[in-house]
Amino acid sequence: MKVACLTGGGDCPGLNAVIRGLVRTIANSGGETIGLLEGWRGAIEGNFIPLDPMKTDEILPQGGTILGSSRTNPYKDENLVKQVVDTFHKLELDALVAIGGDDTLGVASKLYSDYKLPTIGCPKTIDNDLSATDFTFGFDTCLNTVMDAVDKLRTTAESHRRVIVVEVMGRHAGWITCFSGIACSADAILVPEEEADLDAVCERLKRRRADGKMYGIVMVSEGAELKGQNLITKDAEIDDFGHVKLGGIGARVAKIIQKNTGIETRDVTLGHLQRGGSPSAYDRVLGTRLGIHAARLAIKKDFGKMVALRGLHIVSVPLAEAVGTMRTLYPEFMDEAGEFLK
Amino acid sequence: MKVACLTGGGDCPGLNAVIRGLVRTIANSGGETIGLLEGWRGAIEGNFIPLDPMKTDEILPQGGTILGSSRTNPYKDENLVKQVVDTFHKLELDALVAIGGDDTLGVASKLYSDYKLPTIGCPKTIDNDLSATDFTFGFDTCLNTVMDAVDKLRTTAESHRRVIVVEVMGRHAGWITCFSGIACSADAILVPEEEADLDAVCERLKRRRADGKMYGIVMVSEGAELKGQNLITKDAEIDDFGHVKLGGIGARVAKIIQKNTGIETRDVTLGHLQRGGSPSAYDRVLGTRLGIHAARLAIKKDFGKMVALRGLHIVSVPLAEAVGTMRTLYPEFMDEAGEFLK
Amino acid sequence: MKVACLTGGGDCPGLNAVIRGLVRTIANSGGETIGLLEGWRGAIEGNFIPLDPMKTDEILPQGGTILGSSRTNPYKDENLVKQVVDTFHKLELDALVAIGGDDTLGVASKLYSDYKLPTIGCPKTIDNDLSATDFTFGFDTCLNTVMDAVDKLRTTAESHRRVIVVEVMGRHAGWITCFSGIACSADAILVPEEEADLDAVCERLKRRRADGKMYGIVMVSEGAELKGQNLITKDAEIDDFGHVKLGGIGARVAKIIQKNTGIETRDVTLGHLQRGGSPSAYDRVLGTRLGIHAARLAIKKDFGKMVALRGLHIVSVPLAEAVGTMRTLYPEFMDEAGEFLK
Amino acid sequence: MKVACLTGGGDCPGLNAVIRGLVRTIANSGGETIGLLEGWRGAIEGNFIPLDPMKTDEILPQGGTILGSSRTNPYKDENLVKQVVDTFHKLELDALVAIGGDDTLGVASKLYSDYKLPTIGCPKTIDNDLSATDFTFGFDTCLNTVMDAVDKLRTTAESHRRVIVVEVMGRHAGWITCFSGIACSADAILVPEEEADLDAVCERLKRRRADGKMYGIVMVSEGAELKGQNLITKDAEIDDFGHVKLGGIGARVAKIIQKNTGIETRDVTLGHLQRGGSPSAYDRVLGTRLGIHAARLAIKKDFGKMVALRGLHIVSVPLAEAVGTMRTLYPEFMDEAGEFLK
Repeated sequence: MKVACLTGGGDCPGLNAVIRGLVRTIANSGGETIGLLEGWRGAIEGNFIPLDPMKTDEILPQGGTILGSSRTNPYKDENLVKQVVDTFHKLELDALVAIGGDDTLGVASKLYSDYKLPTIGCPKTIDNDLSATDFTFGFDTCLNTVMDAVDKLRTTAESHRRVIVVEVMGRHAGWITCFSGIACSADAILVPEEEADLDAVCERLKRRRADGKMYGIVMVSEGAELKGQNLITKDAEIDDFGHVKLGGIGARVAKIIQKNTGIETRDVTLGHLQRGGSPSAYDRVLGTRLGIHAARLAIKKDFGKMVALRGLHIVSVPLAEAVGTMRTLYPEFMDEAGEFLK
Repeated sequence: MKVACLTGGGDCPGLNAVIRGLVRTIANSGGETIGLLEGWRGAIEGNFIPLDPMKTDEILPQGGTILGSSRTNPYKDENLVKQVVDTFHKLELDALVAIGGDDTLGVASKLYSDYKLPTIGCPKTIDNDLSATDFTFGFDTCLNTVMDAVDKLRTTAESHRRVIVVEVMGRHAGWITCFSGIACSADAILVPEEEADLDAVCERLKRRRADGKMYGIVMVSEGAELKGQNLITKDAEIDDFGHVKLGGIGARVAKIIQKNTGIETRDVTLGHLQRGGSPSAYDRVLGTRLGIHAARLAIKKDFGKMVALRGLHIVSVPLAEAVGTMRTLYPEFMDEAGEFLK
Repeated sequence: MKVACLTGGGDCPGLNAVIRGLVRTIANSGGETIGLLEGWRGAIEGNFIPLDPMKTDEILPQGGTILGSSRTNPYKDENLVKQVVDTFHKLELDALVAIGGDDTLGVASKLYSDYKLPTIGCPKTIDNDLSATDFTFGFDTCLNTVMDAVDKLRTTAESHRRVIVVEVMGRHAGWITCFSGIACSADAILVPEEEADLDAVCERLKRRRADGKMYGIVMVSEGAELKGQNLITKDAEIDDFGHVKLGGIGARVAKIIQKNTGIETRDVTLGHLQRGGSPSAYDRVLGTRLGIHAARLAIKKDFGKMVALRGLHIVSVPLAEAVGTMRTLYPEFMDEAGEFLK
Repeated sequence: MKVACLTGGGDCPGLNAVIRGLVRTIANSGGETIGLLEGWRGAIEGNFIPLDPMKTDEILPQGGTILGSSRTNPYKDENLVKQVVDTFHKLELDALVAIGGDDTLGVASKLYSDYKLPTIGCPKTIDNDLSATDFTFGFDTCLNTVMDAVDKLRTTAESHRRVIVVEVMGRHAGWITCFSGIACSADAILVPEEEADLDAVCERLKRRRADGKMYGIVMVSEGAELKGQNLITKDAEIDDFGHVKLGGIGARVAKIIQKNTGIETRDVTLGHLQRGGSPSAYDRVLGTRLGIHAARLAIKKDFGKMVALRGLHIVSVPLAEAVGTMRTLYPEFMDEAGEFLK
C-alpha cells in the first residue's frame, strides 16, 4: 500500500518520531510512505518527498518536522479541496495520515466524511488542549524547557531579590502554565481559564518575602486575563505582518506587581523556545507509538479515525468526535496547584 | 493533626516533591509533619526531623530524598515492629505516610492490618514495576538520563563504526530498557521478560551495517537472560559486601556480539547515574500530586490506602491490593518496539 | 586573619565558586571569612553573615550569589564611603575581597588608594568586557545557555521556513553575540562594535535560501546599532522604574528583515535567562581558582590587586590598572566569524 | 587549491567544527576540500568524500566526526607510507590537514620532513595532554559531561549516605580528573601524576562524615596508581580483543575505601560517555577557529605547522616541535585542588 503523511500547524518536538514510526511500520508490512511538504499545502500542490526506513532512521532525536509545516487550510476555498482530492488520486494513495491540531485534523475529518478519502489523524498540539487523548507529544518537552528556564531564572531572581514573571504559551488553555507552575514551585499561576486576581498575588508575594523568601516566580499564560480588565482584548492589535498580536501580558503583569508591591520585578517571555529542541524520552516514546498505531490503522483499512493515548494504551477514536472542542485545563489541576498558592 | 513520613528503598528523583507536597498540604489544613530518617530505621529508632513548608519549599528540584533512605525492614524481627508501633504512639502521630517500593509499602500494609496503625502508602520505584499505578515518579527522569547518555554514545559509536551495548537498570522488569530502547532507536532491546536470541541480534546488526548504518546500539536490562544460558544465575555470586552481584551482562553481551559479528563492540554500564539528578517536569508534577493526595487521605482519615496515578487522575487503592505483585513489562510495548527490531 | 567578601553588580554563574574557594583557603590558613550582604550596601550598613567551609561546601553548583547583590556605589556620597571604612574597622577586618565588575572594583581600587584599605578585587562580568583578564567566569555558562536556546530555535525555524532573530546581552561589547554566533552557526552577527549593514544581511539570507537553506538565525547584541540610525539612542527612554530602556532591537531587526526579504521572521529575547543557571565546568574551575588566589593574596598581604586569568595561569594585576577601561570585542573574532558571514 | 583533511585516533566533540571551519574558509578562497575516510586508512586507500560549505553547514552541533576515525598508522609499514604519498599525488592535493593526537600528528610531521608533503596539523585529544596548545577541543565538553554525571550521582550518594568513586578517562595525564574534581567538589582526586595515598583519603572521608557531610565523591583517573602497588601494571592484561585492559581501578578503589572506612561505597565508570555528545560552546568556538586557521595556513602555503591556542589567540607552531612529548597535568592545578583535599 502507498501512504502519504503530512504535518500541519505549529511545530513541536515529537513530529519526526511519529513520521519515523509510521514509515517503518508501513515498510514492515510491505508498503511505502511519502511525505507531503508543508502541511496541506503539499497536498494541494502535490509536493512531496519519498520516505523510507533508512532515511528516517536518524530523525527521532530531531525537533520540528522534516516535512515542514504550514497553516494552509484547503477548506477556505472549495477549489483547494478538489486539488487535495486530485493529488490523492494522482499519487495513487491508499491512505493519508494527517498529523496536526484541531485545524489540520478537521480537514482530515471532512475529507473522510465529504469525499470518503481514507484519512487517519494523529493529534499534535504543544498546548495539550485536544480532547480525546490524555497527552499530546511535545507538551512534555515544552514543560521541561520551561522548567529548565525557570530553574535558571530562580538563581538570578534570588541574587537580586526580585520577582520574575515568566510568560509561557497558552492562548486559550492553561495546561503548560499550570503544569510548569507546579514543576517550578511558582508563587502564582495565571491561566486563561480563571480571571487572575493580581491583588491577591501581590499580597502573597509580600507575605512570602516577609517570611524570608527573597524572590518570587510568577507563571502567566500568554492568553491569561486580569480581573476587571481583559488585557488581551484591549491590546489585540493586528501587527505589521497581519497576525493578531497577543503577548506582552508578562510585561504588564510585571509592571503592576512592581508598582503594587515595591519589589523589583522583571519579565521574561520564553516564546518560540518552547516549541524547539530534541524531544524528551516521553515524547519520543509517545510519538513513535502514535506513528506505529496510525500505520496499523492504515494497514487494517480502519479509516476516519484518530490515534490517541488513554492511560498506558494507544487507542483509536472517530475523527469526527475528536475535533471541534478545545480541552481547557481540568479544574483538579488548579485545585492541586492551589495548595502552593495560599 | 501530626503526620510522619519516611522514604524507603533505593532513592529516585521526585521523592522530595512528594515530601514537599505532603508537608504543604498538611500545613494548609493546620497540621504538622515530621520526617523519619533513613526509612523504617527512623521509625524503629524514633529518629526524625521536623518539616515545615518554608523548610521544604526549595527541595522540589533536588534529586534523592532529604530524609535519607535505607532497606531496613522491621518485619524481619517482631521486636522491631513493636518499636515502630511504640515510636508511633510516643510521637503522638495521627498518620504515617510511607513512600517506597513493594518492600516499604508491604510494611505499611501490615502495620495497618496487624496493628491498625493509620498508614498511607505512596508508590516509588524507578523500575516502574508496581502494579496499581500507571507510572511511578523517577521513571521518567531515569529514561531521560539514559536517553541523553545514548545520544552521546551514538556519535562516538558512529565515528568508530562500533556497536555499543548499554546496560541499564531492571533486574526483573524491562520497563526502563524497553522505553529507553524506543527513545534511543536501539537496534536491539534485551529484557528480563523475554529470553534474548543473540544470534538474531547479531544477524540484524550485520544486515544493518550492510545497508549502510555504520554503528549499532544495544540496550540490555541488568537482569536480562540470554537464550540457552541464564547468565544471572550462573554469575549470581555474593560480592565482598554481601550483595548479590548482578551486572556484567552488558560486558558479556558485548563480547559475544564482537566475536559473532566481527564488529568492534564496547559496553557502558550506566549504573547509579540512573537514580540521580533533578527530577524531570513529569516527575516533579507527579510527585507533588501524589504528596498532596496522600495528605488529603490523611486529613480525611482514609487509611490503609495507597495513592496512584490512573490516566490523568490521582486515585487511591487499598494497600493490601497494591503490594505483593511485581508488574512486568506489558507485551504491547515489546510488540511496538518490535517494529524497529526486524 | 579576618576577611570579608562581597558580590556587586549583575549576578552571574560562578560567584558562589569564588566565595567557596576564598572561604576554604582562608580557613586552611587558620583565618575566618564573613560575607557582606548585597554588595557595597552590606559594607555600608555592616550587614553580614559568617561563612565557613562546611556552610559553603555545597554552593559550588548554584548559580547566582548566596550573598545577594546590588548596584549600590558608596562613592556617590562621601558619607557612605566613611561608613564603609567604619564597617571595616568595627568588624576588625584584615582584608576585603570585592567580587564584581568595573563599578564594584573601582570602589575597591579607590578605597585602597584613598584610605589604604587592604582590598583585593576579583573580576566578574558576564559580558567578558574587562581588560586585564582573558575570560571572566559566567561568560562560558552564558554562551552555553544561548547555544542551547538557539539549538532549540533552529528546529522550529526550519520547520516553518523562518528567520529567527535572537537578541542577547551586550550593551557595549559583542563578546557574547560573536562567540555564541560562531557556536550557533548564525547567518548574521550584529555587535555594538560594528555598524550593522542590514541590507547585506537581507541579501545573504535570501541568497542562502535560494541555495536551499530554508531557515536563518540572526544574533544581535542588545546594544547593536543599525547603519544610518542609532537605534539605541533613538529609543533610549527611561522606563517606568527609572532604568534606561534598551532592548527591543531584536524585534526591530526582525521587522526590517521580514519587510526586506519577504521571509517570515520572528524574534526571541533571551533576557535574564542568560545570567542564570548552574555554572559550567569551565566557570566552576575558573571561579574556584580565582577565589583561592584572592585568598592567597590576602594571606600574603598583597593588597590593591586583582586576580586575573592569563592563558592557563591565575596572576595578579594592580587594581588601579585593571579598572576604568572596557574591553570591546577584539577584531580578530569578528574576522574569524566573518568566514561564515559571506 | 585542493585540500584534503582527515581525523585520526579517538573521537571527541568538536571535530566536525574543525572540518566545517576548514571547508568554509578554503571555499571562501576559491578552493575545494575533500575528506579522507577513517583517518590515515583513507589516505592509504584513497577513500574519500567531497566536502562543501552547504554539506558541512549543519554538522557543527554534532559530536564525533563525519569522516570516521581509526588508529591506523602508515609508518608501521613503509609501503603504507608510499601509498599515502601516492594518494596525495593521484588526488592532486595541494595540502593535507591532519586532525588528531600525538600519533596522527606525528605521521603528518614525518610526511612533511621525509617527503616534503605540504601537511598541516590540528591538535585533538580529549585528554588535553598535548603540549604547544593551552587547551584542546573536546576537553571542555568532556568536563561538562563528567560534571553533569557527578551532579546526578551526588543526590543518590547523599540519600544512601554513600561514597561514590567515579572513574574517568586519563591513562597518563590527570587533566580531566583534576579539572572535573574541582568542578564537582570531590573529596579526593587521584591522578596518574601522583601516587595516591588511599589511607589519607579514607581518613579524610571519615573525618568529613564526622563533621556532618554524609556522602563522598572520589574522582580517579583510569591510569592512576595506588601507593605501594601499581594497580595498572598488575592488571595490565590483554583482553579478548587484543587491547591492553586498563580500567577497573574505580572498582578496586571503592572496595578498599569500603573496607577501610566501613562506609558503603559504590563505583561508576563513565567510559565512552565522556567522548560523546554535542560540543559545548567553548569547543564549538575553539574547533571552528582552529579549522579556519588551518585553512589560512594552507592558503598561505605555510606547511609543516600545527595550529594552537595561546591565551585568546590562535597561533601556529612547527609540527616537529609540537609532537612527541605528552603534557602531564601542571602541578599548580593539583596544588589548587589541594585546598579542598585537606
